[in-house]
Amino acid sequence: MQPIGPVNALYPMPTTLVGTTGNGKPNFLAVAHVGILNHGTPQYLSIGLHQSHYSNAGIHESRTFSICLPSEELMVQTDYCGIMTGKKTDKAALFDVFYGEVETAPMIRQCPVSMELKMHDVLHLGEHEIFVGELIQTWADDAVLADGKVDINALRPLLFDMASIQYWSLGQPVGNCWSAGKALKK
Amino acid sequence: MQPIGPVNALYPMPTTLVGTTGNGKPNFLAVAHVGILNHGTPQYLSIGLHQSHYSNAGIHESRTFSICLPSEELMVQTDYCGIMTGKKTDKAALFDVFYGEVETAPMIRQCPVSMELKMHDVLHLGEHEIFVGELIQTWADDAVLADGKVDINALRPLLFDMASIQYWSLGQPVGNCWSAGKALKK
Repeated sequence: MQPIGPVNALYPMPTTLVGTTGNGKPNFLAVAHVGILNHGTPQYLSIGLHQSHYSNAGIHESRTFSICLPSEELMVQTDYCGIMTGKKTDKAALFDVFYGEVETAPMIRQCPVSMELKMHDVLHLGEHEIFVGELIQTWADDAVLADGKVDINALRPLLFDMASIQYWSLGQPVGNCWSAGKALKK
Repeated sequence: MQPIGPVNALYPMPTTLVGTTGNGKPNFLAVAHVGILNHGTPQYLSIGLHQSHYSNAGIHESRTFSICLPSEELMVQTDYCGIMTGKKTDKAALFDVFYGEVETAPMIRQCPVSMELKMHDVLHLGEHEIFVGELIQTWADDAVLADGKVDINALRPLLFDMASIQYWSLGQPVGNCWSAGKALKK
């Protein structure tokens, strides 16, 4: 066991496409620095965006955004949304865009699941703005729903790891939560 | 595409063991509702804990905590730390506990990677306290280090999915970040 400096090793994280409206147009940014804050209703999620991104102004303006979950199949398009800027590129042109209850949170039909959020708060940490969103509605493709729940194995989420600078797939289930540990209760 | 209500689908998330000191003793709680807030130095990470947990008072008191990353092999012990409460159970007895620079953030030798943090802020969202920690030091087992970086494939992180209520393994690399998308730049 050795110290390696304050290296963030909290990976993998789900890679997402964050949808915003800026200057009246939809835009999407690849974001994997995300978080689940609480567990309940309302449900709050976070996305951490460097202040230099084009998307930030759109969230401040509309006070809404989406978090869309691309599958592995959408890796190339997702990565493109991470390396191109909405200042110069119409990234939304890659996708079939739709809207739900929050009229300024564009979502993507090619993503099996998309969530629309209202901005609840903004934290400022270093050069990043952390947008805390309240989850308003979740949209799912029939193909990834089983008994009304999202089947993560059908979704095939695109996972991100900073150390390898790679996208990773999801593996197999390895055990049941709130159950496997009962073996240690003597 | 259909609305399924405000269902949090931001999974999988890395399952962690959060180490705290409470009443002078180390304790560990399984937490998968975590977040990466910014990207830089200082690095900030979040953990979301229901206010009913025993661990919360320990973090408030010591203003420190750890985030330890169990591998798949530690699934049973990790799950046990999610279903038992530190009020009644000495969960630290399961592990070889060590300390680093932050003297009140217990870490676990059986976890390939552990991070020690100082409490930076607390958000109150519903019945949850979201502890924002500043990363101070990261400890890694030689077995998961390659060229000084954490090899996520060697780490074998334990991933959590709420819909299936299962732990999942990591799959394979599927592409390179900030590279795969270049194919769409004409």
